[in-house]
Amino acid sequence: MNSKIKISLLAVLFVALSCKEKTEEILSGQSSSQGHPSLILTKKGVKDIRANLGSIPIFDKTLAATQKEVDAEIENGFDVPVPKDYSGGYSHETHKKNYVLMQKAGALYQILDDDKYAKFVKDMLFEYAKQYPTWPIHPKPRSYARGKLFWQCLNDSNWLVYTSQAYDCIYDFLSEAERNTLETDLFRPFADYISKENPQFFNRVHNHATWGNSAVGMIALAMDNEELLDRALNGVRDEGFNPDEKDNDGGYIRKEGQKIGFYANVDEPFSPDGYFTEGPYYQRYASYPFLIFAQALQNIKPEHKVFEYKDGVLIKSVNALLNLSDADGEFFLLNDAQKGMSYFNSSLISTVDIGYHFGGNNPELLSIAKKQDEVTLDDAGLAVALGIKEGKDKPFVKKSIELSDGAHGDEGAVGIIRSHDMELVFKYTAHGLSHGHYDKLSFALFEDGNEVVQDYGMGRFVNIEQKGGGNYLKENKTWAKQTIAHNTITQNEKSQFKGEYDMASKHHSNKYVFNVADENVQVASAKEENAYPGTKLHRTMVAIKDEDYDNPYILDIMRVSSENSNQYDLPFYFLGHIMQSNFEYYKLSVPEVLGKSDGYQHLYKEASASVKGENIKLNWLRNNKFYTYSAVTLNNDEVIIGRIGANDPEFNLRNEQTLILRKKNVKNALYVSTIESHGTYSPVSELAVNAYSNIEHVSVVLDSKEYTAVQVLTKNKKQQLFIISNENNDEEAEHKLTINNKEYTWKGVYNLNWFKLF
Amino acid sequence: MNSKIKISLLAVLFVALSCKEKTEEILSGQSSSQGHPSLILTKKGVKDIRANLGSIPIFDKTLAATQKEVDAEIENGFDVPVPKDYSGGYSHETHKKNYVLMQKAGALYQILDDDKYAKFVKDMLFEYAKQYPTWPIHPKPRSYARGKLFWQCLNDSNWLVYTSQAYDCIYDFLSEAERNTLETDLFRPFADYISKENPQFFNRVHNHATWGNSAVGMIALAMDNEELLDRALNGVRDEGFNPDEKDNDGGYIRKEGQKIGFYANVDEPFSPDGYFTEGPYYQRYASYPFLIFAQALQNIKPEHKVFEYKDGVLIKSVNALLNLSDADGEFFLLNDAQKGMSYFNSSLISTVDIGYHFGGNNPELLSIAKKQDEVTLDDAGLAVALGIKEGKDKPFVKKSIELSDGAHGDEGAVGIIRSHDMELVFKYTAHGLSHGHYDKLSFALFEDGNEVVQDYGMGRFVNIEQKGGGNYLKENKTWAKQTIAHNTITQNEKSQFKGEYDMASKHHSNKYVFNVADENVQVASAKEENAYPGTKLHRTMVAIKDEDYDNPYILDIMRVSSENSNQYDLPFYFLGHIMQSNFEYYKLSVPEVLGKSDGYQHLYKEASASVKGENIKLNWLRNNKFYTYSAVTLNNDEVIIGRIGANDPEFNLRNEQTLILRKKNVKNALYVSTIESHGTYSPVSELAVNAYSNIEHVSVVLDSKEYTAVQVLTKNKKQQLFIISNENNDEEAEHKLTINNKEYTWKGVYNLNWFKLF
Repeated sequence: MNSKIKISLLAVLFVALSCKEKTEEILSGQSSSQGHPSLILTKKGVKDIRANLGSIPIFDKTLAATQKEVDAEIENGFDVPVPKDYSGGYSHETHKKNYVLMQKAGALYQILDDDKYAKFVKDMLFEYAKQYPTWPIHPKPRSYARGKLFWQCLNDSNWLVYTSQAYDCIYDFLSEAERNTLETDLFRPFADYISKENPQFFNRVHNHATWGNSAVGMIALAMDNEELLDRALNGVRDEGFNPDEKDNDGGYIRKEGQKIGFYANVDEPFSPDGYFTEGPYYQRYASYPFLIFAQALQNIKPEHKVFEYKDGVLIKSVNALLNLSDADGEFFLLNDAQKGMSYFNSSLISTVDIGYHFGGNNPELLSIAKKQDEVTLDDAGLAVALGIKEGKDKPFVKKSIELSDGAHGDEGAVGIIRSHDMELVFKYTAHGLSHGHYDKLSFALFEDGNEVVQDYGMGRFVNIEQKGGGNYLKENKTWAKQTIAHNTITQNEKSQFKGEYDMASKHHSNKYVFNVADENVQVASAKEENAYPGTKLHRTMVAIKDEDYDNPYILDIMRVSSENSNQYDLPFYFLGHIMQSNFEYYKLSVPEVLGKSDGYQHLYKEASASVKGENIKLNWLRNNKFYTYSAVTLNNDEVIIGRIGANDPEFNLRNEQTLILRKKNVKNALYVSTIESHGTYSPVSELAVNAYSNIEHVSVVLDSKEYTAVQVLTKNKKQQLFIISNENNDEEAEHKLTINNKEYTWKGVYNLNWFKLF
Repeated sequence: MNSKIKISLLAVLFVALSCKEKTEEILSGQSSSQGHPSLILTKKGVKDIRANLGSIPIFDKTLAATQKEVDAEIENGFDVPVPKDYSGGYSHETHKKNYVLMQKAGALYQILDDDKYAKFVKDMLFEYAKQYPTWPIHPKPRSYARGKLFWQCLNDSNWLVYTSQAYDCIYDFLSEAERNTLETDLFRPFADYISKENPQFFNRVHNHATWGNSAVGMIALAMDNEELLDRALNGVRDEGFNPDEKDNDGGYIRKEGQKIGFYANVDEPFSPDGYFTEGPYYQRYASYPFLIFAQALQNIKPEHKVFEYKDGVLIKSVNALLNLSDADGEFFLLNDAQKGMSYFNSSLISTVDIGYHFGGNNPELLSIAKKQDEVTLDDAGLAVALGIKEGKDKPFVKKSIELSDGAHGDEGAVGIIRSHDMELVFKYTAHGLSHGHYDKLSFALFEDGNEVVQDYGMGRFVNIEQKGGGNYLKENKTWAKQTIAHNTITQNEKSQFKGEYDMASKHHSNKYVFNVADENVQVASAKEENAYPGTKLHRTMVAIKDEDYDNPYILDIMRVSSENSNQYDLPFYFLGHIMQSNFEYYKLSVPEVLGKSDGYQHLYKEASASVKGENIKLNWLRNNKFYTYSAVTLNNDEVIIGRIGANDPEFNLRNEQTLILRKKNVKNALYVSTIESHGTYSPVSELAVNAYSNIEHVSVVLDSKEYTAVQVLTKNKKQQLFIISNENNDEEAEHKLTINNKEYTWKGVYNLNWFKLF
């Protein structure tokens, strides 16, 4: 098919889809005008807020802080500078400050009924309306979709999402003539610019487009403009679309035939469980436009039933996102993600409040809002404040949970096993769009909110200008995304899917079993068969809790089978200080660079050991806790103790350690290990308690095509035999198996037998 | 003088001193018998405690916890095993547990008047009395003074310090015959063993001897035995003393003619300010026997006026020790010290309570006790509990303070400058006995309880058996004690005093000026003229607070003058992640080992730069705060970015970074730099605030024999000119100096001029 025909077909498809939505909307026949404000605040909401002021502590506190901030800025006066800078620069930061201030001032006007806030918004909007038509495209050239106020349309969209709320709040304060001026000179051309004039930005399934769609949708609702609303929901006509086009991050603009507009952005990246395919770090970012626009749409056009769309996925996404955080509320690091981002981020204030107000008043969300100690200054925030005031909050209890990936929930999943203070995050998802890492079947382990076995996260210091302008560093691609940077298999020193986005995007891992019904034996198991053509990976991770010990241990079984002989590396990114190993290693006098590409060029080899079929143990200390990794080895296995930091000319990387278990020239490999948190140290009392592993021995007692059986002998002389069926994941299937002359029978995919030796 | 004569002279001296003390004691004519209990609890104290129980929350809480613990142990039964193990082993840990339990059970008996606690102590003591006479010297040979219960007399002394308290508590519960048995079979031979039979342990000025003296003193007071008390206070006859003898850590037993006994241990290591020459980590350890015995002596023999001894130095030492802690209560790292040790350590509970009860009821100590949330179960603990209950507590305000070193306060000092959240610890002390590091004129910088520019601390993981049995690691000597491991000058890659204890012990640095009267310009300055014969070091550290900036910056002027050409290295052990430097460096593809000895063998060179007379700047991030180091350089100066960890076969070292400024082939050198904490980062809001240095330029405008003048230009266009007189530290002297045709006059050692440029 030549590209001309492609484009035409696509255009037809687009128009068809677009018409369908429009027709439905017209048929619904409901009026959309409800007066102002109506986006995040409603007339009723304002009345209720005013009636409750002074008796809703969390709301009152947020209001007082906001008032203080805005009053100071009104005092200082504002500036609307000619656009010039990248982020960090004056014009960028000032326009950003302006939209936040306008949004806040708008809300203050409604709540406090003080004209000075409306006047502040009005004056600033008129200054924008005066200047905007004179501004050319932003002078900085980096973006595939340059904005006018900012270097990229993304930030222009941010501006409009916030400013629409302010406009809605002061709508009735303005004369009709004034509104006409603002809409004609500013909002309409602004919305057209980020949509019609930048379809390569607007017509995507991507967090950029979500911001763009929501921006146009918000101003459409504020202006009561059906045409813009349709554009927001269904995308803009885009006749010259070139499917080979990429954005400045190297991601494709969109696939052929892909749906566009707000609904498409809900449909595709969210799984039915509410997992956002890019991962929680970007879900947090996209969550604001998704929910703020959904809220406005619900308020003004409830007939859209946006919160029921796709079986209520937007509300489910709130729960999913909160479940993707550790004990301290920090998000797990899946794909590109900066450490430390948490549900205390301001977009999560909105997310939680909207989720509560529009999602059936889930009392568990109130306990999160209490921790956040802040609410939005609108109807949703009021609802939360009243709920807290009335003592309706219940603890948000995070349990083990599997969150499916893919629009239809059939593209793998993230399995989270929680047991006591341990949280295991096991990744068997799809690729995660342009922010995906090449790390199928990798995992990370947390204890009580601290990383124990880490995911590196991204190679970026967001908004820290000293480090590459705060943007992605080149090490994000050369290191952080590569397979060897993760706790999973690298074959022949090449990243999964050759580190190629196109290939990775076509595939996903598959869930094999996720069963957490027995809290003492929680199992997540998944397979990956495309990362290395001809090689199959099957990993099973189990949290086993023995009543004699305080913490569960993790049993990790990674099974590799290939048609060819390969080298397999399985790194273990423990964080902390090595206390002891039970194997002798050779420490190099100076480190060597471990390899040439695929992330290996960033690893130093510090020490190595040839191991001889015994269990290897590594005991380390982290945050005053003792941990031990115990792994089964075979003759000729090699252990490499490595450190991150080679070929890092600007000290962009963190110099953390890893232990790599390497198996060479084998077709099949079975990696079996345990991870324990078993003891504590106090530098104040100088007491070390349970400093050593509770596991005496781990061994593989059977490994066939059909079954794998692993035996763990603990120091309390209990033997635990874990057997898993490798090819039949039917939970109802009956199994019978003889191992060492003993017959085992069970129903289901796996079985754990406990024996007390004496 | 031959050694025989030496010994005889010494013996005469000893007897003379001993007689003098004894005579004074007899002359004082006061009775020493006050009944029992009288060591840490008194009859009146017990009565008052009983009367207040249930209404003194912090005491009640400690009591309940102690009762719960002891009840459980009484339930379990006790064991008195045959001595066998080093620390960590069963017999060691059991004897240790036993003495702690007896001490607690004794107090419980008195407070709760429940015979089961007395019986528990009695039964255990009789078991010890039965077995003790049968035990030979402990089988483990490592110590220069092997104990009987433990591998070293030190631990035997710990046992006796605690057990004496228990014996005192149940004294009246026992029949006279029972007491005779215990005293004859157990206590008397026990006391003799650690004193008469181990004078090399008992007759020292050392924390070992302090424990030994206090142990003998405590049991003397409990038994009302004057002979033992005299021995505790004044030492034991030691005719065969060999002054060349060393302990197993390589420290000399004692100097010839040195005083011995408890009072000698108060006299010598404590300065008049209460600074303990080994440093706060060991002061914390020795603090318990010093104060617990002083308390008992005060209770039973107030005529000794022990708390007034040496102008009240024991009470002063409490205040000194607390002042040697950071904002979180963690002790500064001077000499051998493990990070994380703090005033939450149990020995500090006693220290604070005794300091309060016997030191004039300083209400600031109550606020520390409140943080500790625990008191001792005795008269002192009651006093604290009542003080807290009555709301008498006041904040313990730590200000800038200089603590002199040396018995007479004339052997240098530690200067602590506090300004806002910054704490600068500047060391110009004596060597610190066998725990001293070779780091004259080094410093460390803390912000809000976090290390910013670190002292490495010691090479040891105390009581973590995996790491060399929890004892000092060989890297303590080869790395942690060496000069290059510290933020001070190393000349020609050799440690100060050649890293030799004998030489280092003979000298100390000298205070030049310490003036913190102006909180915006706080100055500490000191000289060291013996570390490298022929070379003089003079360092001045100033905290300068400009009203335009939130934090003060540190101005550091290190002046080196030598008779010979040398290489000087000044390392800067910043903690955190490098964000940016303003100079180009060459990053090695693999690190090189920096040197061969004196700690250099443990440093990797990761990058280097030749600098050309401009300011070099290093900007880094630590705990979400931005810092910048700015240093004046000359042509041909070399910058080395290094990392700890070479020649470390067992991963005993922490792999932290340093920046070394090297000057080669020069006689004199002037190092001038500034350190700023200027900004913050939030991974939640992803905002970087004030990420860059506020200092535009640092320059030396004058450096003569008499004066050094440094000019700092800040970004707010203020010029600060700091001038110091290098040879006249008379605070009253008048100075007149012309720099760049401008005349400056001032009174005192230094002067800071502020100019606003426009």
